[in-house]
Amino acid sequence: MNKPDYSKFLSSRINFVEPSPIREMVSKIAKKSKETLIISFAAGDPDPDVIPRKLYAEIAKRIFEDERRSVIYSPTEGLPELREEIARFMMNYERVNADPDSIVVTIGGSQAIDLIGRLILDPGDIVIVENPSYVNTILDWKQYGVRLIGIPMDENGMRTDVLEETIRKLRSEGKFAKLIYTIPTGQNPTGITMSMDRRKHLIEIASEHDLLIVEDAAYNHLIYEQVEIRSLKSMDKDNRVVFVGSFSKVLGTGLRVGWLYLPSELVNLFKAAKGPSDMCPPVPSQLVVHRVLKEGYFEEIRKNAIKIYKEKRDIMLNAIARYLPGIKHTKPSAGMFVFLWLPSHVDGWKIAEEALEKHAVATIPGAPFYTDNSGRNTLRLNFSMAPKDLIEKGIEALANLVK
Amino acid sequence: MNKPDYSKFLSSRINFVEPSPIREMVSKIAKKSKETLIISFAAGDPDPDVIPRKLYAEIAKRIFEDERRSVIYSPTEGLPELREEIARFMMNYERVNADPDSIVVTIGGSQAIDLIGRLILDPGDIVIVENPSYVNTILDWKQYGVRLIGIPMDENGMRTDVLEETIRKLRSEGKFAKLIYTIPTGQNPTGITMSMDRRKHLIEIASEHDLLIVEDAAYNHLIYEQVEIRSLKSMDKDNRVVFVGSFSKVLGTGLRVGWLYLPSELVNLFKAAKGPSDMCPPVPSQLVVHRVLKEGYFEEIRKNAIKIYKEKRDIMLNAIARYLPGIKHTKPSAGMFVFLWLPSHVDGWKIAEEALEKHAVATIPGAPFYTDNSGRNTLRLNFSMAPKDLIEKGIEALANLVK
Repeated sequence: MNKPDYSKFLSSRINFVEPSPIREMVSKIAKKSKETLIISFAAGDPDPDVIPRKLYAEIAKRIFEDERRSVIYSPTEGLPELREEIARFMMNYERVNADPDSIVVTIGGSQAIDLIGRLILDPGDIVIVENPSYVNTILDWKQYGVRLIGIPMDENGMRTDVLEETIRKLRSEGKFAKLIYTIPTGQNPTGITMSMDRRKHLIEIASEHDLLIVEDAAYNHLIYEQVEIRSLKSMDKDNRVVFVGSFSKVLGTGLRVGWLYLPSELVNLFKAAKGPSDMCPPVPSQLVVHRVLKEGYFEEIRKNAIKIYKEKRDIMLNAIARYLPGIKHTKPSAGMFVFLWLPSHVDGWKIAEEALEKHAVATIPGAPFYTDNSGRNTLRLNFSMAPKDLIEKGIEALANLVK
Repeated sequence: MNKPDYSKFLSSRINFVEPSPIREMVSKIAKKSKETLIISFAAGDPDPDVIPRKLYAEIAKRIFEDERRSVIYSPTEGLPELREEIARFMMNYERVNADPDSIVVTIGGSQAIDLIGRLILDPGDIVIVENPSYVNTILDWKQYGVRLIGIPMDENGMRTDVLEETIRKLRSEGKFAKLIYTIPTGQNPTGITMSMDRRKHLIEIASEHDLLIVEDAAYNHLIYEQVEIRSLKSMDKDNRVVFVGSFSKVLGTGLRVGWLYLPSELVNLFKAAKGPSDMCPPVPSQLVVHRVLKEGYFEEIRKNAIKIYKEKRDIMLNAIARYLPGIKHTKPSAGMFVFLWLPSHVDGWKIAEEALEKHAVATIPGAPFYTDNSGRNTLRLNFSMAPKDLIEKGIEALANLVK
């Protein structure tokens, strides 16, 4: 017996790997949920009862029975007919005339974001994100050794005036930001949707200062109000927006089907890098999504989801107004989240832990979404997952802890 | 319009990314297959008609109907009950007493291998592989900038005497190999199975010289002869074998379900790195595999696959003996491949292209599997995929080209 010292074998890259603070909370929630029924405001998942699982059952049955290719490899970029449906989807939903050959199907938006890190980001590179921003993008790109700069947001999204100032300041120091990452619609964690003026300004800034934009469109199709918005990609004359699409939030996170829509110059590089790392996205999932799109079910599923999530959002916002009067929070017109700024002396971690322990209410502290160790008094609340009749009770329990 | 120069934005890492020469051949095959019926000896896939797709259809229907969690995220390491079934599987099939908490479910074996690259391999690191070895592992680890050293094989697998000599030579030059990658059973591309003596010797060498071993067990359960073999992991007293498991070759490559069985010291690191890069493996696929294991179908599926692939292998070997007498080739007792060494003046690429164009017979040149630009006269032939009654015809067509 001559047990190795594993640390000796590890890549220097591991110094950039941080465990997700949120996954710890998620483990606690999973453990608690074995003991008791919890009210979950934690996940970034759709409501599994809003997903038409009976339809998927029928489709999956047909797929396995009829399609020999359901059980073998697809091309690494995804099945050609799925990429064609995604191109049609981008025309219908994003006003983007996408070439199917510039679409690469990925394991949800997550793998798309990781591939961008893998092929674009070097240690020391500067990346600009909203502050707060999606914790998993932050953690993934940190694995590539980048330096993140967070730009504050208001109710209209990323403060593009601050962005411009920040970029000018960097340039005056001889520094260069490679890309700007944004979730313009129904942002995670805040639920904020960027206004059209800000979108235009963002595109202008990227063009003027020669930056790439990564548009994470995960929540683009869960919109609850009449807001006039367009995807950044549809406004992208320069072709400097890398579009990260996902069916997760409408069709189900468990399927793991997302995509990259890339400038054509980058497609072969991304395919070459992706090929050996996954061979291909899961084929039964690809075929389920393909049928849902092709047979026209997507719009129906989306409309039903919007109807139900809008009701849930309103119940949550009303409960917050009632039980947490005066608390600063977002009023999302899209997405799945309400973001709370508790009184500045209140610790979001402590509230989240106590809410889980004492009241079986699951929430996610907002701090890990921040790039600058601020946001300790914040909480992210998901409104898509919990049953309607428990949302008010959950908010009431939270309010009692805050007091 | 101010189109960016994309090359300016790319990571230095892209210098290590090589397009797969095999994917080009696969594209040509896909194109040809639209025009005519091809006889495919190309893929590394199981026969879709050997996979019990009707059973999967029933299971998938039940899963979507009954399980709310089928459409939402699982933990990044996979569903707990799947990891428990995999632990049971490792006991039954690998004689390994695995802790479910040291199992991480991955997107096939591919993602497992990529994660090893990501967390273990630094640019300039030396990695030892069989020569030839699996082209996708070679391409993936090259993306991490490693230097590969290939060890020749004979009919008993990796020449461990040469391995020992190579390691001694490296040490005398002050160099250090981090790990040895092997596919000990039914190797890809050769179909060779490592003898017990070699396995023991390999483990001894790793222990003596303090190396890690990565055991790619993709073909461990497609064994056609009474050969007394054990997984390296089951012989691994030091705990220096990282085990890469896969259900792809028996249950279907399209599902994308594999796993890592890791030394416990490495589990949290791998989970932390994997989390943001994929969130989780596809949940419907995880649930299908879980049911197949739990309800005892795996052994039945495996036995049927072995029966059919053994017949196909024998048809192929008989046809080679008949139409290509005197040609050197492997006689696999496991796996999916026969490897051919054509006469030294024959170019495997040319034969593969001509066989496809002229006779609609798809094969894969062996050269990309070599670490040292040798093997130009080799071909990899898969025997699991083609219908029984077409195998002889395909080999005859190949033989006519070789002559």
